Amino acid sequence: MDKINKAIELIKSSTSDLYHKDFLLTWEKTNDDLVTTIRLAQLIKDLRQSNHSLNLFDSGLAVSVFRDKSTRTRFSFASACNLLGLTVQDMDEEKSQIAHGETVRETANMISFLTEIIGIRDDMFLGEGHRYMKEVGEALDDGFENGVLPTRPGIVNLQCDLDHPTQSMADLLHLVNEFGSLENLKGKKMVMSWAYSPSYGKPLSVPQGIIGLMNRFGMQVELAYPEGYGLVPEIVGIAKENAKKSGGSFKISHSMEDSFKNADIVYPKSWAPFHIMQQRTTSLRNNDQKSLKELEANCLANNARFKDWECDEGKMKLTKNGSALYMHCLPADISGLSCEAGEVAKDVFEKYRIKTYIEAGYKPYIIAAMILANRVADPGIFLEGLIQGRKKRIVKT
Amino acid sequence: MDKINKAIELIKSSTSDLYHKDFLLTWEKTNDDLVTTIRLAQLIKDLRQSNHSLNLFDSGLAVSVFRDKSTRTRFSFASACNLLGLTVQDMDEEKSQIAHGETVRETANMISFLTEIIGIRDDMFLGEGHRYMKEVGEALDDGFENGVLPTRPGIVNLQCDLDHPTQSMADLLHLVNEFGSLENLKGKKMVMSWAYSPSYGKPLSVPQGIIGLMNRFGMQVELAYPEGYGLVPEIVGIAKENAKKSGGSFKISHSMEDSFKNADIVYPKSWAPFHIMQQRTTSLRNNDQKSLKELEANCLANNARFKDWECDEGKMKLTKNGSALYMHCLPADISGLSCEAGEVAKDVFEKYRIKTYIEAGYKPYIIAAMILANRVADPGIFLEGLIQGRKKRIVKT
Amino acid sequence: MDKINKAIELIKSSTSDLYHKDFLLTWEKTNDDLVTTIRLAQLIKDLRQSNHSLNLFDSGLAVSVFRDKSTRTRFSFASACNLLGLTVQDMDEEKSQIAHGETVRETANMISFLTEIIGIRDDMFLGEGHRYMKEVGEALDDGFENGVLPTRPGIVNLQCDLDHPTQSMADLLHLVNEFGSLENLKGKKMVMSWAYSPSYGKPLSVPQGIIGLMNRFGMQVELAYPEGYGLVPEIVGIAKENAKKSGGSFKISHSMEDSFKNADIVYPKSWAPFHIMQQRTTSLRNNDQKSLKELEANCLANNARFKDWECDEGKMKLTKNGSALYMHCLPADISGLSCEAGEVAKDVFEKYRIKTYIEAGYKPYIIAAMILANRVADPGIFLEGLIQGRKKRIVKT
Repeated sequence: MDKINKAIELIKSSTSDLYHKDFLLTWEKTNDDLVTTIRLAQLIKDLRQSNHSLNLFDSGLAVSVFRDKSTRTRFSFASACNLLGLTVQDMDEEKSQIAHGETVRETANMISFLTEIIGIRDDMFLGEGHRYMKEVGEALDDGFENGVLPTRPGIVNLQCDLDHPTQSMADLLHLVNEFGSLENLKGKKMVMSWAYSPSYGKPLSVPQGIIGLMNRFGMQVELAYPEGYGLVPEIVGIAKENAKKSGGSFKISHSMEDSFKNADIVYPKSWAPFHIMQQRTTSLRNNDQKSLKELEANCLANNARFKDWECDEGKMKLTKNGSALYMHCLPADISGLSCEAGEVAKDVFEKYRIKTYIEAGYKPYIIAAMILANRVADPGIFLEGLIQGRKKRIVKT
Repeated sequence: MDKINKAIELIKSSTSDLYHKDFLLTWEKTNDDLVTTIRLAQLIKDLRQSNHSLNLFDSGLAVSVFRDKSTRTRFSFASACNLLGLTVQDMDEEKSQIAHGETVRETANMISFLTEIIGIRDDMFLGEGHRYMKEVGEALDDGFENGVLPTRPGIVNLQCDLDHPTQSMADLLHLVNEFGSLENLKGKKMVMSWAYSPSYGKPLSVPQGIIGLMNRFGMQVELAYPEGYGLVPEIVGIAKENAKKSGGSFKISHSMEDSFKNADIVYPKSWAPFHIMQQRTTSLRNNDQKSLKELEANCLANNARFKDWECDEGKMKLTKNGSALYMHCLPADISGLSCEAGEVAKDVFEKYRIKTYIEAGYKPYIIAAMILANRVADPGIFLEGLIQGRKKRIVKT
Repeated sequence: MDKINKAIELIKSSTSDLYHKDFLLTWEKTNDDLVTTIRLAQLIKDLRQSNHSLNLFDSGLAVSVFRDKSTRTRFSFASACNLLGLTVQDMDEEKSQIAHGETVRETANMISFLTEIIGIRDDMFLGEGHRYMKEVGEALDDGFENGVLPTRPGIVNLQCDLDHPTQSMADLLHLVNEFGSLENLKGKKMVMSWAYSPSYGKPLSVPQGIIGLMNRFGMQVELAYPEGYGLVPEIVGIAKENAKKSGGSFKISHSMEDSFKNADIVYPKSWAPFHIMQQRTTSLRNNDQKSLKELEANCLANNARFKDWECDEGKMKLTKNGSALYMHCLPADISGLSCEAGEVAKDVFEKYRIKTYIEAGYKPYIIAAMILANRVADPGIFLEGLIQGRKKRIVKT
């Protein structure tokens, strides 16, 4: 209980500005915002483990908008909402009229009359996902300011074309627990590396989320990829700036081997090249099936030139003491298990398999922390009160 | 709190007969039933706004049966159920065996063992939706009387072929708030007008719901449509009778301009002609695709003759002081925004856009009121008790 | 309340071993496990009826995995989870990435971070459903032992290729209530008979579940089917052994008439022959559409030779006093109602219709009992405490 009281005090003393602010991109948040979020996530996890009720709400909707298939993010969001007492209502576009030409503005209000939080995953089109979330946010502002909505629901980005903050923040909390503290991450070398995959069109949001976040706290981040597999230039620029501010570093390399040398952490994961994703967006918009097929064939053929970008035992030996922490957002393309040749060798994955599961397990708590901080002005005081026990629709803090 | 106590007293003194009665058609309800329902809805809204818990149930299912796509009704129903502590379980016909020849009687019981309320939307076929709801109700009676079900779940009509009571009652509550009181609506002129739409087969339930309800309280209701776009004759008859009883009036006109003159409220909305909907039902039953296509083509061609039935600035100027209240159940076909030419001019819609959102925002509370009044013998006493705080599966009143 | 206290005492004194044990097959459970489960189910039903809250959890997920369409099992599971305070999250394979080659091991963990129970229905392929549930269970063991999961979620078999324990246990509770006590079932003759159906490929799990369970308590079970419609031999062996141990009997017959003679209970229901289901599994695995069509045609042609295997008035007259209890898991193929010729004559079904509904109504409580006994070390003590009222995320016992 001492650990819990200490954590609550730290949260109470934070100067974060998360209340009623959407969580869309980590680089729009202050360091204090990010630290408070991961502290809250860990605290919520600890409180749940010691069987505390965390029902902030005794009623209220959380809306999920998924524009892509999803298991783990869907379950993480559902778990987080449920933990706080919210009921998830899917905004399934197949079931709804949003596909029939309704404006975003109207629909955003129609689904929000009794809604506290909206989680959106929209990572299909470059230039679309983040723009869409901003548009929903503006519609909610409009509705709230004009008396349509009793409260302005918060938005949590469950993955867009630019960032994947619930993933990267879960990854950060995993690192904090692996290395003992946020402080201990300073100076650690983390490699975000492209890796070969037999599939195509994997989004850029995970690597972008990682390079955009991890050197906020003094890490030495290295981005490795074969020539032509660059990320969105704007995000790369943000990563460079973050490195300067935090006393960390940011470097780009074009050799998986070189990048792995002396690394403390490696995150080998496939993605599609930025310019391919741009062409894909154009073709998808035009519903140009022929061009999409050609694009896929070209991309896969190009990928195949880099089958040696696999995280195998040989490359792992190059890392610090041969024992860097391997990370992955899952599911990984595992050579000889889920595919013939993929991102990671079977024996390397098996060695770190449980750790990747543990890594994934932080996501529900990160989302819960984002929701809690969005809905409660002072989450520390709220949690203090909750431990003692009160009852209202929204527990007063 | 004084406003709330007063509202509770009014509800306690009502002689309404809503307990354990399905809410299918407003014209089957007494004036007191209707007034109590909108009072309850407003009270629930006020209590929620002042952060009172409204959990009537700490467990219990609400079943939703949607035989048509829906966003706003689905979310309204989900919000209302959640507010009272019920969990919605969709009876999705694609997922279930109801499509495989099971009898309604059996399925109605199988989904109701722990169910408190069933919300049904079935507005596709003329002569079907209301009939289906009655059939489900009889199956539930049978199950309850024979000891199969521990309670007789209530049914809320979320839109049928005849009426759309959750919409029309939300509209009425909107009017009460816009004009200050139910009393103030007496003598006001409300126009339910057909309007042009480039789409086809829009249901009749909204205009029928409006003319069937609005002159219960002394309004002067005018129904306007081009020759051939008549509604179900039975409902028109009910509207005429209601007008007589309430001291209001009911009139049919065939000119949008004429009807708008001196109107306090206008509700311009497209619908398919009654006889077209009848033919469509026959063709759908026979799965006669050719006849359906011809019907659609004919109907759209006929619609196109009435493109001037658009609610534009010119027509709005004809209304009382040029400032009648514009209403719509949403989504509207907005000329130059959601379609080339539609029900309403872009500038007119934009002027009233926020008001249409506010109008829509009453629906969750209307549904919650219908559920509450169905499940609790005296909702006033219940709410009094709830404010003080108690805990049981179903809070005792 | 005396009845309830007595029931609680019986449960407290049980030596069952249900805590943290998956409920997959009744024949893996001790008699005490089974008796405790049906006692708990009845007690939960009685407590709910007398308006006690049964919220064991104030948050927590229940995951449902349905690999087949389902109405009644889906609603039963949803009702049971809701009653105990869990929120169901569907693991819909169409929505998720499980269909994309993910390993069961990984997905089982990813959906379980805040999950208490997983209900699985997988009855399509012989040799698959039970195997899959065991595999999920092993993945959960692995995740829990390695610190991935805060608790080991329990698994409830909602129907597999071998057994259908929520059905057979609900059937048993129905019999206990029909005959007054479990003791009274001793020596009663129960006939599980094949019956004609115009449909094809009905699973074996219901008849197998019935013969595997019903002679655990001294009943005389007779399995009747036309030559060639045998069940999985392993399960038939289990039924024989159970009969020996319990002092009951197990007999196979090939005449519906003969089997009905002097029966106390009859359960006429169609199923596909074991060897046909085996071939079907092979063909489905190979996606061999041609062979599947031939198989269906052959099977239906063969079924048609046994149209006289219908439960009609004539055969019912052969039963004890002509008034055996008719049972069915629903939906039944009712001659002249849901099909031309089927499992049961219309008049026989109508006579017992309400009783089959009541039979089905036990399933939510059986599932709730299975969940409760899985999550709480001593459900008797828990229920005692719950009646008095406490509040924690998981109510302490």
